[in-house]
Amino acid sequence: MENQSDLLNKQLLNDIGNIARVTSAEGKVASYIPELSRMSAELFSLSCQPVDSPMVETGDCGQFFTMQSMAKIISLAFAIEQFGCENVFRHVGMEASADSFNSLMRIEMTSSKPSNPFMNAGAIAVCSLIFKAYKEESLKRITDFLKSVIGEENGFDEKVFLSEKRSADRNRALAFFMKSMGLLHGDVEAILDLYFTLCSLRCTSGGLAKIGAMIASGGTSVVSGEKLIANETVYTLLGLMSSCGLYNESGEFAVRVGLPGKSGVSGGILAVVPGRMGIGVFSPALNAKGNSVAGIRALELLSEKLDLRGLGL
Amino acid sequence: MENQSDLLNKQLLNDIGNIARVTSAEGKVASYIPELSRMSAELFSLSCQPVDSPMVETGDCGQFFTMQSMAKIISLAFAIEQFGCENVFRHVGMEASADSFNSLMRIEMTSSKPSNPFMNAGAIAVCSLIFKAYKEESLKRITDFLKSVIGEENGFDEKVFLSEKRSADRNRALAFFMKSMGLLHGDVEAILDLYFTLCSLRCTSGGLAKIGAMIASGGTSVVSGEKLIANETVYTLLGLMSSCGLYNESGEFAVRVGLPGKSGVSGGILAVVPGRMGIGVFSPALNAKGNSVAGIRALELLSEKLDLRGLGL
Amino acid sequence: MENQSDLLNKQLLNDIGNIARVTSAEGKVASYIPELSRMSAELFSLSCQPVDSPMVETGDCGQFFTMQSMAKIISLAFAIEQFGCENVFRHVGMEASADSFNSLMRIEMTSSKPSNPFMNAGAIAVCSLIFKAYKEESLKRITDFLKSVIGEENGFDEKVFLSEKRSADRNRALAFFMKSMGLLHGDVEAILDLYFTLCSLRCTSGGLAKIGAMIASGGTSVVSGEKLIANETVYTLLGLMSSCGLYNESGEFAVRVGLPGKSGVSGGILAVVPGRMGIGVFSPALNAKGNSVAGIRALELLSEKLDLRGLGL
Amino acid sequence: MENQSDLLNKQLLNDIGNIARVTSAEGKVASYIPELSRMSAELFSLSCQPVDSPMVETGDCGQFFTMQSMAKIISLAFAIEQFGCENVFRHVGMEASADSFNSLMRIEMTSSKPSNPFMNAGAIAVCSLIFKAYKEESLKRITDFLKSVIGEENGFDEKVFLSEKRSADRNRALAFFMKSMGLLHGDVEAILDLYFTLCSLRCTSGGLAKIGAMIASGGTSVVSGEKLIANETVYTLLGLMSSCGLYNESGEFAVRVGLPGKSGVSGGILAVVPGRMGIGVFSPALNAKGNSVAGIRALELLSEKLDLRGLGL
Repeated sequence: MENQSDLLNKQLLNDIGNIARVTSAEGKVASYIPELSRMSAELFSLSCQPVDSPMVETGDCGQFFTMQSMAKIISLAFAIEQFGCENVFRHVGMEASADSFNSLMRIEMTSSKPSNPFMNAGAIAVCSLIFKAYKEESLKRITDFLKSVIGEENGFDEKVFLSEKRSADRNRALAFFMKSMGLLHGDVEAILDLYFTLCSLRCTSGGLAKIGAMIASGGTSVVSGEKLIANETVYTLLGLMSSCGLYNESGEFAVRVGLPGKSGVSGGILAVVPGRMGIGVFSPALNAKGNSVAGIRALELLSEKLDLRGLGL
Repeated sequence: MENQSDLLNKQLLNDIGNIARVTSAEGKVASYIPELSRMSAELFSLSCQPVDSPMVETGDCGQFFTMQSMAKIISLAFAIEQFGCENVFRHVGMEASADSFNSLMRIEMTSSKPSNPFMNAGAIAVCSLIFKAYKEESLKRITDFLKSVIGEENGFDEKVFLSEKRSADRNRALAFFMKSMGLLHGDVEAILDLYFTLCSLRCTSGGLAKIGAMIASGGTSVVSGEKLIANETVYTLLGLMSSCGLYNESGEFAVRVGLPGKSGVSGGILAVVPGRMGIGVFSPALNAKGNSVAGIRALELLSEKLDLRGLGL
Repeated sequence: MENQSDLLNKQLLNDIGNIARVTSAEGKVASYIPELSRMSAELFSLSCQPVDSPMVETGDCGQFFTMQSMAKIISLAFAIEQFGCENVFRHVGMEASADSFNSLMRIEMTSSKPSNPFMNAGAIAVCSLIFKAYKEESLKRITDFLKSVIGEENGFDEKVFLSEKRSADRNRALAFFMKSMGLLHGDVEAILDLYFTLCSLRCTSGGLAKIGAMIASGGTSVVSGEKLIANETVYTLLGLMSSCGLYNESGEFAVRVGLPGKSGVSGGILAVVPGRMGIGVFSPALNAKGNSVAGIRALELLSEKLDLRGLGL
Repeated sequence: MENQSDLLNKQLLNDIGNIARVTSAEGKVASYIPELSRMSAELFSLSCQPVDSPMVETGDCGQFFTMQSMAKIISLAFAIEQFGCENVFRHVGMEASADSFNSLMRIEMTSSKPSNPFMNAGAIAVCSLIFKAYKEESLKRITDFLKSVIGEENGFDEKVFLSEKRSADRNRALAFFMKSMGLLHGDVEAILDLYFTLCSLRCTSGGLAKIGAMIASGGTSVVSGEKLIANETVYTLLGLMSSCGLYNESGEFAVRVGLPGKSGVSGGILAVVPGRMGIGVFSPALNAKGNSVAGIRALELLSEKLDLRGLGL
């Protein structure tokens, strides 16, 4: 029987890329933040970082884009490491909600914390915890952590940051609403600045793949070989990525792709094959639920070709 | 390195059982259906069915209990096989909802189909599809399918069935509500009778493990070696079990256990380790969200001891 | 200054009718109950019953239609008389809800009784109270009460009753849902039969005007001069008609007409001018919220011409 | 028969005050805005301003308090006068909602404008319309209008204003949420400043009575005899006060008191007897829904003693 490691090569990724990138025509580049809408719908890159062998990539691999919601993986991991699971999940739940990513209805309806840390409300609550502890140092601490994961620093996209900040009324509403209910503490604008900066961090699909590989390897950096996050943190990230990583498309993603993942409105998706590899994919055209059309298609093909669910089908 | 197949043995399951069954004191046997409440909270069984080796079990393995929501796996698999994914998911969604298992609020709020086939409303919608096609033969068809999976017929518990039927006002409300919105067709009482009979089917943790093993092996019966369900059906079951198999505790289950699963209010949980084995566990005391306390604990320990997430931790 | 009693005459009503009935073209005859849809959209009648002088009417005054939700006035008045306000409002609230008349979302969301007795759920809860006390005699008791108010018995429309019963899935859902939450007790089908029979009671706009006049006079029948309901009951009816008598169009009705009212999907509206008269109007074409288009228009004109708000404008 | 005008005298108000003020022990002074909580729960005043005779008052009549939500009457009247009903109600609905005064759930759920102009969200939307037209002059314009109604200028309470502003997270959330949905335009902080200043305007129960009398007389100032607002504006105010003037206690208020009213969390209530008089009452202890306990009781007694519903009971 052919070994899967043999199957993962540049030719396979090229083939997948050729099939997947066509589907981006069904989507639309995000427009709710003006600066995001300038990205070309044609762009596509796909990167696989095995836990124990070199990265394999295809497409516009050098293309930077902003992390958007994928940064929630980094801030959540950082927060759990610093404050412990129990403390973090006192402020945010662990369940998918079927509501859209920027919903707050359920917080009012149930008078309780945001459903999960990957919806905007939950991610802002996580930022508020971090900001409470580290104040102005918060960003530096998180980006240092990110650097230890991917081995480089790519800065943030100031135009996107400013665009986010100017278009931030919904997130501002979420933050003030939570504050009014005692679910968030501190200076809302400072917390949102941290949140928007994280969303604006620049990355490539290769960077996403390295983040995924760190999780896939149980918390060890593929760059330095250093153990960066505890097992419990790894389990938490995987569990949440499986159940609510693609907003209210998480169930369908679990059916079609079958891997823990996390998407962002810039068009990136980060996925994890536990024990084997991290995957990053990028294509800016989104479907109605805010996820990359070609990105999901590429992951679906990859999952099938490499039997990433381990079913031998 | 020690092989995981060597690790899975009766002693390990005994050890896990001893630790897990104690936690059942934190739960309560379901009382909303009078007949269910007669079950002793002391009972416990745990069965592992590898895809390619004999079953390993511990505890009260001969103890029958009713399938309850775990039967939703069987009826969903049957429906997808008969009518295709596209047809089935025209009537039910694929997303977790954070609402309780018997909620209908979101159906009214969004004027659309039930969130997923594992909430009561969704499972009733699936039953209505089956009943529409097979009428009075529906039950026989589904139980024949179940027999092909587990190799035996255990009948259904008539007392539980009658108790369900008498306590069924909420499910009746769900069915009539969907019917009024055109989301369900046919004779509500007949559809509910089918639904309650499926909930009342008798099984053991060993039976659950065999269902799990069939999914784990990509659709092949561990009893007959026959391919029973298509790959697409397998993917769909796994994806939905990962994202919404434990009602509004699915996210937390994904974090703690990290396996696709499906629970029932009788206290059973069915889990799948893709490519490797099916697991059935039974302990009737439930937590506030309707899931077996000791069952989740046992799965958590098993996942850890056997590294079922494949992280090598 | 001209006296308002002088102003109320057949000519005025004819004029109003001519203007109002034209607007019925903007509406649509109810179709959710097949039998209702057979009514001609051309029909129109308007009746005013002063508390101390003879009825004045115009249009198709002899035309019978079914009371539908207007019967909720009668069953609520009867229930308060028999069981007292405190008992009745332990099972149903007093507040408008902005939800549609057949909504149940809020009952689940707040885990509490229906918002008010004029939404279907609330009216069914009132019927359950009556049925609990009077069983099979319930209908007779309520229709005897109605006869004491309007001085005649017009029976019920069996075709509409059967049509309601056959199209009753939503109401059945409401009843079973409330029963599952302990908000309603007894045999759901028997309670719904009572509810549907009340909805199917035949009346004319003149009958509605007499009901209104009984309330307008503080509870005294304009037929017999007998005091039929207590002051507290009168206050309760007026308060609820003011705030939630026209479903989720109650606020707009209060703005445009400014009188306590109660509508039904047959196209009737009953209104009260406290201390002065009752008004009944009928025109089957409904707007999107289920209220008679020409009926509201006629009441608006009448309110203006006769200064029924007492503002002297 | 004794004339009602004879019945309205200082002795009657004294008697009512003595009975009503005792009930304030059942309530609690508002504490969500720190500055409001300093008000003594013992204070009570009741003022009646007939449309054609001098004011009659009892209690702590000189006591100033802030208008809070009662100012919504003034800003709404002003907005309708300036922009017309159609324009105003394109941005806000006319229906009561059963949600609490600071809810925003329904705006998300229905993706549409706030339910009515007396909930905070709706009132803020009205302020945004005014601010868009008059910018920094907005406050002056509204207070000039208020002065024309009550004949005096009482300024605003700066401490309360600053306290509101500091405690304003929920209102800020409402505003940003609406802005994100395109339901509100302009500078949120400036609009909220206008809103909070209006809430902080000082008044007495006598002032409230004069506002009520202006509405009762069909829009004519009792101070100057000048016609200040159009008939349509009067109808709109009366209709909305009848159906949603006391938040989610409006239905119960309509039952118990039977008059159009508007309450505020400072403990004031303004009521209108169309064609006859305006009433202002003040007592700071509130019930759970945010309305003055003794205020409602006083209005209930007054309505009964003077037969303000005109039923002759």
